Amino acid sequence: MKIALDAMGGDTAPETTVAGAVRAARELPVEVVLVGRRDAIERSLASYPKRPKNLSLVHATEVIGMDESPVASIRKKRDSSINVGLGLLKEKQVDAFVSAGNTGAVMSASMLLVGLLSGIERPGIAILLPGVKGDTLLIDVGANIDPRPIHLLQYALMGEAYARCVLGTSRPTVGLLNVGAEESKGTDFMKETYGLLEGSGVNFVGNVEGHDIFTGEYSVIVCDGFAGNVALKTAESLAHAIKALLRRSLAMSPITRLGAWLARDAFLQLRKEIDYAEHGGAPLLGVDGISIIAHGASSAKAIKNALRVAYESVRHELNKNMVDAIQLHSQHVKSA
Amino acid sequence: MKIALDAMGGDTAPETTVAGAVRAARELPVEVVLVGRRDAIERSLASYPKRPKNLSLVHATEVIGMDESPVASIRKKRDSSINVGLGLLKEKQVDAFVSAGNTGAVMSASMLLVGLLSGIERPGIAILLPGVKGDTLLIDVGANIDPRPIHLLQYALMGEAYARCVLGTSRPTVGLLNVGAEESKGTDFMKETYGLLEGSGVNFVGNVEGHDIFTGEYSVIVCDGFAGNVALKTAESLAHAIKALLRRSLAMSPITRLGAWLARDAFLQLRKEIDYAEHGGAPLLGVDGISIIAHGASSAKAIKNALRVAYESVRHELNKNMVDAIQLHSQHVKSA
Repeated sequence: MKIALDAMGGDTAPETTVAGAVRAARELPVEVVLVGRRDAIERSLASYPKRPKNLSLVHATEVIGMDESPVASIRKKRDSSINVGLGLLKEKQVDAFVSAGNTGAVMSASMLLVGLLSGIERPGIAILLPGVKGDTLLIDVGANIDPRPIHLLQYALMGEAYARCVLGTSRPTVGLLNVGAEESKGTDFMKETYGLLEGSGVNFVGNVEGHDIFTGEYSVIVCDGFAGNVALKTAESLAHAIKALLRRSLAMSPITRLGAWLARDAFLQLRKEIDYAEHGGAPLLGVDGISIIAHGASSAKAIKNALRVAYESVRHELNKNMVDAIQLHSQHVKSA
Repeated sequence: MKIALDAMGGDTAPETTVAGAVRAARELPVEVVLVGRRDAIERSLASYPKRPKNLSLVHATEVIGMDESPVASIRKKRDSSINVGLGLLKEKQVDAFVSAGNTGAVMSASMLLVGLLSGIERPGIAILLPGVKGDTLLIDVGANIDPRPIHLLQYALMGEAYARCVLGTSRPTVGLLNVGAEESKGTDFMKETYGLLEGSGVNFVGNVEGHDIFTGEYSVIVCDGFAGNVALKTAESLAHAIKALLRRSLAMSPITRLGAWLARDAFLQLRKEIDYAEHGGAPLLGVDGISIIAHGASSAKAIKNALRVAYESVRHELNKNMVDAIQLHSQHVKSA
């Protein structure tokens, strides 16, 4: 298996991406293909005396910046690491592509260069969130901010397949993110989506609310990309705020500082549980090839885990399973 | 000043509401009017040997349940504590109304029985959220899940007036909750709202994102009620999850348990900083009378603080200031 990594993507590329690639190459039975400027990548690789054999390099002369306009930049910079990496995916020279670069550019290039799976109209970004009782896959967190109900149905089918095949959940539950639990709640858009999900054959549990996201009660929660993006970023913001406020209050006296020091293993444990880096990248579901988006601020560990998500998705034939789910649904609808 | 409290509203009414009313009557220079079933209120009051003199009672025979249909229940139960309390507000027998009951019913009854301020088309629920650098007023968190751009402009004007008059912020900043900072981001709805806010005369700082909600960087953030509701409930969910996970990890060994015990003052401090109960109720801005919505799970302290929010709103002539802001804006638009 070969996985292309956008070596130039992310706030501290290529140092961090190369570090993540080296780790992944050591831990996973895959070949990691670093895509980007040869000289810059070689410089970063020079700090690893024993370069893993399953690490290769494909040169790409251009870099798309984090703030560049997605569609314009992928049209203009044909030889960017994102375009070249996704070109390798399109030509099936690699099995998956991972990038911590410009999310919009990765998304647009994935759609334009690689295309979508049969039966899928719009891709969705799925993110695995930690919860008290387990993880929840939230889809979509921003690929499609003005979706139609049919798109959310497709997210449900794809998310369900992801939870079943990649995460190993035996019978995943699917909820619809809304402002109340009753069927009558929400906008007309939500009511129509509810009806589609109800007749879809997925294990639909009805409307869920923002306060159901971090309980781990549901395997998959589907939402429009606007609400999903707001929810995800709000959660990140609150986690940061709690961390900052807790740090400030733990420093209030010598006693609390001693307490914090004694309890440090507990804080490390918590950090491990809620740290996005542990969960790796967010799959862009619906693309005709595995395309994984990592956080721009990804650490080497987060990059490694994003490569692991790509590896698991390929290994479990995610896209084949998603297409099967879509086809099964079409037959289900026809026979109904 | 007289403030009516829905004694029957909330998960543990009337015990908790009465306890909150007693506290408020002792701390604030107001008369608290308990509205609800006389016998039930009297039973709860019996546990306070010295009943404050500034506590009175208005009988209402019916109670609207937390899960009842809002519009149907306020039409059917004319003698409910919500209808009777808002009737007192309408007739100006009280200066404000506070309820921890059925949010939808309070909202509908406020609109139908009391009416809206001149120039306001839809009310918005505003909630004060704690942040690292200070508090942020988020409006709307669910009164209006399918708003028009003009409604968000009105939220901005009202929120700005609230921050200035009630919270004492000298020149409040106003942001628009969106999925990216650039002006071109978001749906057509968002772009139109952006244009309205830009020409409105409020101190508009542009688009903000979910991760700006808990920084305290902005005084007021306006949003559609759907996204606001999802953001608020997601934040509640994450706070609960972090609390549960931290408690679990702090219990992992005798050392971490000792550490947690030594650091307990720090945890209490954090709890105080992020606890909704400290901030009290959420004003329903735009109603022609002060109407405050409290969380259904409000503690006695939260009820007291909701009564304090009502008191501060009346004392600072919130509604007069909001109407002035709306009129000033109309002149601003005409002269432009």
